[in-house]
Parts: sequence; C-alpha cells; structure tokens
Amino acid sequence: MKTISENRCFGGVQGVYSHASQSTGGDMTFGLFLPEEAETGAVPVIWYLSGLTCTHENAMTKAGAQRWAAEMGVALVFPDTSPRGEGVANDPAYDLGQGAGFYVNATQAPWAPHFRMWDYVTDELPRVLFNSFPLAEEAQAITGHSMGGHGALTIAMSFPGRFRSVSAFSPICNPTASDWGRKQFTAYLGSDEATWAPHDATLLMKKRGFDGPMLIDQGTADQFIDLLKPEALAGAMAERRQGGTFRMQKGYDHSYFFVSSFMEEHVAFHAQALHG
Amino acid sequence: MKTISENRCFGGVQGVYSHASQSTGGDMTFGLFLPEEAETGAVPVIWYLSGLTCTHENAMTKAGAQRWAAEMGVALVFPDTSPRGEGVANDPAYDLGQGAGFYVNATQAPWAPHFRMWDYVTDELPRVLFNSFPLAEEAQAITGHSMGGHGALTIAMSFPGRFRSVSAFSPICNPTASDWGRKQFTAYLGSDEATWAPHDATLLMKKRGFDGPMLIDQGTADQFIDLLKPEALAGAMAERRQGGTFRMQKGYDHSYFFVSSFMEEHVAFHAQALHG
Repeated sequence: MKTISENRCFGGVQGVYSHASQSTGGDMTFGLFLPEEAETGAVPVIWYLSGLTCTHENAMTKAGAQRWAAEMGVALVFPDTSPRGEGVANDPAYDLGQGAGFYVNATQAPWAPHFRMWDYVTDELPRVLFNSFPLAEEAQAITGHSMGGHGALTIAMSFPGRFRSVSAFSPICNPTASDWGRKQFTAYLGSDEATWAPHDATLLMKKRGFDGPMLIDQGTADQFIDLLKPEALAGAMAERRQGGTFRMQKGYDHSYFFVSSFMEEHVAFHAQALHG
Repeated sequence: MKTISENRCFGGVQGVYSHASQSTGGDMTFGLFLPEEAETGAVPVIWYLSGLTCTHENAMTKAGAQRWAAEMGVALVFPDTSPRGEGVANDPAYDLGQGAGFYVNATQAPWAPHFRMWDYVTDELPRVLFNSFPLAEEAQAITGHSMGGHGALTIAMSFPGRFRSVSAFSPICNPTASDWGRKQFTAYLGSDEATWAPHDATLLMKKRGFDGPMLIDQGTADQFIDLLKPEALAGAMAERRQGGTFRMQKGYDHSYFFVSSFMEEHVAFHAQALHG
C-alpha cells in the first residue's frame, strides 16, 4: 500500500492511499479519515460510497463529514467509484465506465476484466482496511450519495449483520426501472434482467429489508429526481413495515450543498448505532 | 448581474453570481451564502478572501463555512482572486497573473489594465453587494487563507472602522520579505518598494494595527511556512501590544483540511463581533 497524502484534520488524519487490487486488476485509490481516538485503539467505521463522476476525493473535500466523525470518534472510508487507468475500458458518457461502476461485478465485454466494484467494496477493500488500520470490523455502517446511495442500500441489504445502520443521500432507488440503471445494467450485466434484481434497492427492500436503523434524505428540488425514483423505495419501505426514516427535504437539490447540509445528522445517526 | 447558480444549503442559499466590473474591466464571479435570516432582513457579512490558484469556488465548496454561518445568522462572500478571461494578461507560474491578484492595483505592464483587485474588493464589490442583497453594511468582518489572509489583514488595517473583526488562516504575513510577495509586487507595482509597504501586514501592524479583535491560525506542519513568515507578524503584534490571538496549530498543513478544521471557531469569533 502506498500513502498518497496524509493531512491533519480536526485532530485526526485525512489520508489517501492506493494499492494493487486483485478484484479490479489495477491500482485503486481510497480516502480514509481516522479520528484522534484511532491513535489508541480500533474505532468504528462509516463507509461513504460516492456518485456518478466522483472519485475517492469528492466527498472527502466537499461533504464536511470529518468534523462530525472527529466529534463522534468514528472513521470514514471513501472508496473510488470505478477502476481507472490504462487498459481500463471507458465510455464517453458520464454515466457509464470510469466514474460509474454502479457497485456491480460486470460480466459483459468490454467491462468484465476490471469493473468488479461489488467484489472490491464488499470483499477486497474491507480486508485491506481491517488488516492495515485500527478499524473495528464489528462496528461498520454504510452511506452514500446518488449512485453511491444505491451502492450503500444494496450492499447493506445483501450482507445481513455486517452493517449496524444504513443511510443514503438522494439514492438511485429503483435502477431496474430508470435510465440510471437499465443502461448500465445492460452494459455491465447483459440483457437478462434476473441478474439486475440483486442490485435494485427497491426490489431488495421488498424481498429482504434491512435489520437495523435506516435513514434516507432526498431533496424536493433535485434535478435528477425522476431518475432516482424515491417514491419506489419509500413505498416499498412502508409496504414492508421497514423501520426507518425517509425525509423529503424541501428546496434542496442533488449537489454537495445538500449532502453537507445533512451530513451531521447522518454521522450522528450512524454513530449512535456504532457506539450503542 | 447574472445568477450562475443558487443551491439550498443549511436552510439558506449558496449563490454564485457574475457581473461586469469597471475596476477590472471584465466579468467577475463571486459566491454569496445567505442564511435563512436574510429572507426577512439584512444580515451581517463575513468576507472570505482566497489564496493562490483559487477562484470564488474553493472555499465555497471545501471550507465547510456555511454550516456555521447558517447557525450564527451571518452571510459569507467569496470573491474571485483575480480578473480572468480573454484579453487578461497571465503568466505560466501559478503564483503570478490569473488566480494570483494579491489584492493590489497593478501599475505596471502588462497587468495594469485589469489587475485592480484592491479596488474591486474594497470598493466595487461592496457597492454591488450592498445594493443587491440584504446585507448589513455596518456589520462586516473579514478573513482569508494564505494570499487571502494577506488580503484580509491589509484591507482590515487600511479601512479603520469598516470591519469589526479580522482573522486569517496561514496568511502571507510579510510579503515584502518573501518570494511570495517580492516577485508579485515587482511585477504588479514596480521596483519602488515604497509602493509595496501598504500591502504588507507586518509593516501595517507596526504602523497602524487593527482596532478590534484579531485571530490568526497557522499550522506548524505548513509546507509553505518559510514563505508565510508568521514569526514576523506574531512579533509585530506583540511589539505593538495589539489585542489578538495568534495560534500555532500543531501538525496542521496549508490545505483546506486545516482551514475547515478551524472554520467553526473563526465564524464564531466574527459572529460575536458582528452580533455584539
């Protein structure tokens, strides 16, 4: 593992690291914020999965999360959103290829060799992190924004017991019924829609739900709201009698000005589950 | 004036606007955060001047200041750091020309026609702001980072009575004795060092000081600390018996991870002076 940078931040350290990844067949970069408490012992960790076009860096610099993580004694991990670099397939569209991994394992050409973000985020990166940093494997939570909200919700529901709490900011809620989903699942997974279902938060909610606290925030002025389909997930949560909170935040859009506005409440929500 | 964007943020609005500027002879862009209180009346305002290579955008997205401005009911204005666009002189170096206006009025070719950031920030932009937005002209404070800390300190000391409080994050403290200063003042103002003195915070501190509360934060691990010369300003403040606080923050560097770590305290410091 290579240290790209380490900056003192709110009494802790905001680091950026890269490592050779077996699952994606190339170097992967991630951000990790460790609060001061990590100097003396393992700390709980919140995963933050980013959205389309983002790298490990966007939330790390724009979400304002470190302030709350420091105060509440939790670590934050910021994975990249796709494989990158020479020899990695790409597409001119912003919503396919590099920066748009959609947290799935691609089975189709030309994506299959590198686009294995499901394995990377759920298996390889956890092993790297828990081997190398003072993080408490038994105290994990997960959140994300947009495509990363989709990732957080689908991963949380697919690994019962792993995450104590899940939240999301303006997640892609129902990708099998949206142009943010059908296009990418066709490209990465092929035309058999049965392979898509495990990657749709609304379908997973109907089938399994999440055994723990759940918090969703969605801006009412979100310019992408028709692609996100919050009504599908909100309806599925209610139908299932899933415990959780789904908030429509009046006047907020899809930007990090929205994410940062509610970050304190998300970190506090997870910290309560992690420390409780 | 043209609205570039407006985003709901912490209950207020983060706007970006552009306008034709007489002082710089071209369009200028600035950010303005208005807290919810601005819907019903004029609010106090904190000026935030940015550093080398920055635009109006850096602090607006990375400093985490809106959270505190919203809580404390103050506006934030984020000016650009130089003129830009076609016909505006530039230099390949990151520390001269566009993105590096140094908050002076250039008198030398090729900079003189557009590089009039002193007039822009101290005269034209205030008139634009107080004419167009619900801001209380009698309740202003000023801060900045690096080159912007230099701007904040020199402007605050040059307009007695205008700003109730001044602060800075890792400011360029003594530019007439630093390569961050001598190079730019020679280019913009010419070789007569008498014209440089009004733009050196340490020299102004020795001559005038500031009649109000003052707060400086400087990271001990700042990679540019030899160019910033905090010892010159700290010494001058002590010699003058200037009321104020100068903090050396152990382990912090020059980045926005440092700035954001102490933003809450700076906004609170100014809010106390502004609301008091």
